Amino acid sequence: MIYLDNAATTNYKPQSVIDSVTDCITKYPFNPNRSGNKQALELQQKLYDIRKKLSLLYNNDSENHVAFTSGCTMALNLAILGNAKKGHIIITCTEHNSVLRPVMQLKRKGFVDVSVVCPNANGDISVDDIARYVRRDTYMLCVSHASNVTGKYQNLEKIGDYARRHNIIFLADCAQSAGYLPLDMAKCNVDLVAIAGHKGLHGIQGAGALIFNNRSVPRPITFGGTGTESHLQYQPNTVPDCLESGTLPTPAIMAMSAGVDYWLDNWKENRDIIEKTQQIILDGLNKINGVKVYSQPNLSGVIAFNIHEKDSGEVADELSQKYDIAVRGGLQCAPLMHKWLGTTEQGIVRASVSCATTQEDCYALINAVELIAK
Amino acid sequence: MIYLDNAATTNYKPQSVIDSVTDCITKYPFNPNRSGNKQALELQQKLYDIRKKLSLLYNNDSENHVAFTSGCTMALNLAILGNAKKGHIIITCTEHNSVLRPVMQLKRKGFVDVSVVCPNANGDISVDDIARYVRRDTYMLCVSHASNVTGKYQNLEKIGDYARRHNIIFLADCAQSAGYLPLDMAKCNVDLVAIAGHKGLHGIQGAGALIFNNRSVPRPITFGGTGTESHLQYQPNTVPDCLESGTLPTPAIMAMSAGVDYWLDNWKENRDIIEKTQQIILDGLNKINGVKVYSQPNLSGVIAFNIHEKDSGEVADELSQKYDIAVRGGLQCAPLMHKWLGTTEQGIVRASVSCATTQEDCYALINAVELIAK
Repeated sequence: MIYLDNAATTNYKPQSVIDSVTDCITKYPFNPNRSGNKQALELQQKLYDIRKKLSLLYNNDSENHVAFTSGCTMALNLAILGNAKKGHIIITCTEHNSVLRPVMQLKRKGFVDVSVVCPNANGDISVDDIARYVRRDTYMLCVSHASNVTGKYQNLEKIGDYARRHNIIFLADCAQSAGYLPLDMAKCNVDLVAIAGHKGLHGIQGAGALIFNNRSVPRPITFGGTGTESHLQYQPNTVPDCLESGTLPTPAIMAMSAGVDYWLDNWKENRDIIEKTQQIILDGLNKINGVKVYSQPNLSGVIAFNIHEKDSGEVADELSQKYDIAVRGGLQCAPLMHKWLGTTEQGIVRASVSCATTQEDCYALINAVELIAK
Repeated sequence: MIYLDNAATTNYKPQSVIDSVTDCITKYPFNPNRSGNKQALELQQKLYDIRKKLSLLYNNDSENHVAFTSGCTMALNLAILGNAKKGHIIITCTEHNSVLRPVMQLKRKGFVDVSVVCPNANGDISVDDIARYVRRDTYMLCVSHASNVTGKYQNLEKIGDYARRHNIIFLADCAQSAGYLPLDMAKCNVDLVAIAGHKGLHGIQGAGALIFNNRSVPRPITFGGTGTESHLQYQPNTVPDCLESGTLPTPAIMAMSAGVDYWLDNWKENRDIIEKTQQIILDGLNKINGVKVYSQPNLSGVIAFNIHEKDSGEVADELSQKYDIAVRGGLQCAPLMHKWLGTTEQGIVRASVSCATTQEDCYALINAVELIAK
C-alpha cells in the first residue's frame, strides 16, 4: 500500500519509538505516581523528564503545566471544558471538530456565545478580523496552528500579542504541527497548546498532552484516582495530577517522548523529504486538467485537491481499491473549513506525505489521479 | 524485584499481548473509522470483532454497546457523568475514587444526593442495606464487583435483581474482576460494566471499555471527531462512535483483546496459581505475631494486611528498599473503604499476586514481613 494519510496517523514508526513501547511494556509495567517501588519511581522520574522536555520544547513556564492525555482531542476538551465560563469564545473556520464540538457543547448548554473568524483570501487569520468579533466577555480564542484540511499554517505571534493585550486565553490546536514546526508559547503569547503523539511525532495512538500556563490552568473534567491525596472524596487541586485521573497510558507516552527525540534529531532531513515529495505532488496535480488543488506548500505535507466535481469519498475509494493508495476523502472532521472552501458537498481528497514517503509514491498518486481525471 | 502489586498493573504481559501491540504498531498504524483504505477497514473490522467479543463475554445486548475508553476510570466517568441527572445515587464503601469522585463532583454541582452503603461484618453488601437508602429519585447504584483494597467480591445477582425491579441503573466497577471472574450482565441485571485492560487482562495501560445496555446509554462527556457525520457542528448521537471522540488507542485496545483471549485460554491454570500463592501468603501472614490480615481468599489475588501500628506506606517503602518487594501502601484510592475498616490513618499494605507469582515470591514476602514485625 502507498500510504498518503499521514495527517491522520503517520504510518512510519521509527525503531526508537517501537523500542520505547516494548521497553515500557516489558521493563516498566507499573503504575507511576502510585506504587512506591524503585522501578515505579524510576518510571515516575521518566514521566517527569518528559513533562520537562515538552515544556522546554514549547518554551512554557513549568514542567508541572504539562498534562498527559489520551490524545489531542482529550487535550482540547480539557483546555476548553476545563476553562469554561459564561462568556464568549472565538474560533476560526479552520478548527477541527475536536475544537468545534466541545465549544458548541458549551454553547448548547447556554454557557457561551461562539463567533467564527474566517481566513482572508490567502488563508490567513488576521488580527483585524479577530478584533471585529471581540466582545467585553470574550475569554478564549482557539486557532489551529495548521489546518488539517489544507496544511495551511497560521502565524500565531501577532494573534497571541493581540489576545494577551485583551486578556483573552489563547489556545493553539497543534495536532497537525507537532513534529513539523515548534511553537514558542512565551514569545507568541500562547496560553494552551494541545498535541497528539501519533501524527507528526510518529508515536503510537493513545497519548497526547495539554501544555498550559499560569493564566489557563484548567479544572479537571474527569475524576478519579490521582495517586495523591487519596483520602479526599472530591477531586484534588494539585496540577498536573488532578488532570490525569486513572492510570496513565505510559507506553503511548513513552512513544510520544521517543517521537519528540526523533523529531529533534531528524527534523532537517525529514523536512527536506516532506518539502520535496509534497512539491512533486503539487506540481503533478496542478498540471492535470480538471484537478483543483487547495494547498500551498506547507510544513505538514498536506495536499488537498478535488477531481472535477467527483465526490471526494468516491475518489478516495477508487484510489484505495484500484491503486492501493491510501488518502482521505470527505470532510476531515472540519465542517467549517469546507463551508469556507465551498466543498461541503464534494468534500476534499487529502493526500499527506511524511518523511517515509518516496518519490515513487508521489508519481503513483499523480498517475492515478490523472487516470481518474480522464 | 518481586512484584506483588498486580492489582495496580499486572507486570506479566503474555507474549501474545506484546505481539498484538507490535503487530498493531507495525501493520496497522492507521485510523480505523476514518480512512477508507483496505487495511484501515481491516482494522475497523478487528475493532468490531473486539466489541463483539466483549459483549459476548459479559453477555450484553449488542456489540454497539461497547465503548472503548482510555481506561477504567474514563469508562466509569462516562457511565456516571454520561447518565447524570437530578436525583439520588447510591454507592458503597468499597468504591474506588474513580467512582467516588465523579459522583461527588455531581454532588458538588448540586445535581445529586449521594448515599453510601457499608458492607456487613462479612464484607457483603446486602440488598436489605441498599433498600434502606433507596428513595423515589434514586436512579443509579454503583457497586465494585471486587474491592481493590481487600479483594472481596460482591454477589451482584441479588443486588441487580433488586435494582432492576426498582428501575435503578446498576453500574458494576469491574476494574479488579476483569480477567478473574466474568459477569453475566443479563442474568445479574447489570446495566453498565467498566473494565481496565492492564490489570487482570494483562494488557497494556491506555485502554478500557464501558459496556452498557439499552437502559443506560450514556451521553458523550467529551467531544470531537468521530469519523461519522463530520458535517455536524454538534456531537452526533450514534453509539458507540459518539462516545469515542478522537483517534482510538488501537495498540492498547488490541492488547486488551489479546488479554481477553489469554484469559479464556488460561483461566483455569491461572486461577489455580493465584489461589495457591494467595493461600501461602494468607497462611504465612496469619501466623506472624502482630500482623493483621484483612483479606479472605479471593479470585483477584489481593491480600491486605498491616504490621502492628506501623504506617502502611513506611512498610511498603521498607519492603521495596530493603527486600526489593513491590506492594502498595496507603489508601489505594479507596478512602471510604479505609474509613469502614478503621485504617484511614494507618492505611493498608496490599500485596497482590498474579499468574506469574511464584511460591518463592510468597515466602520472600512472608519472611520480610516477619522481620519487619519483630
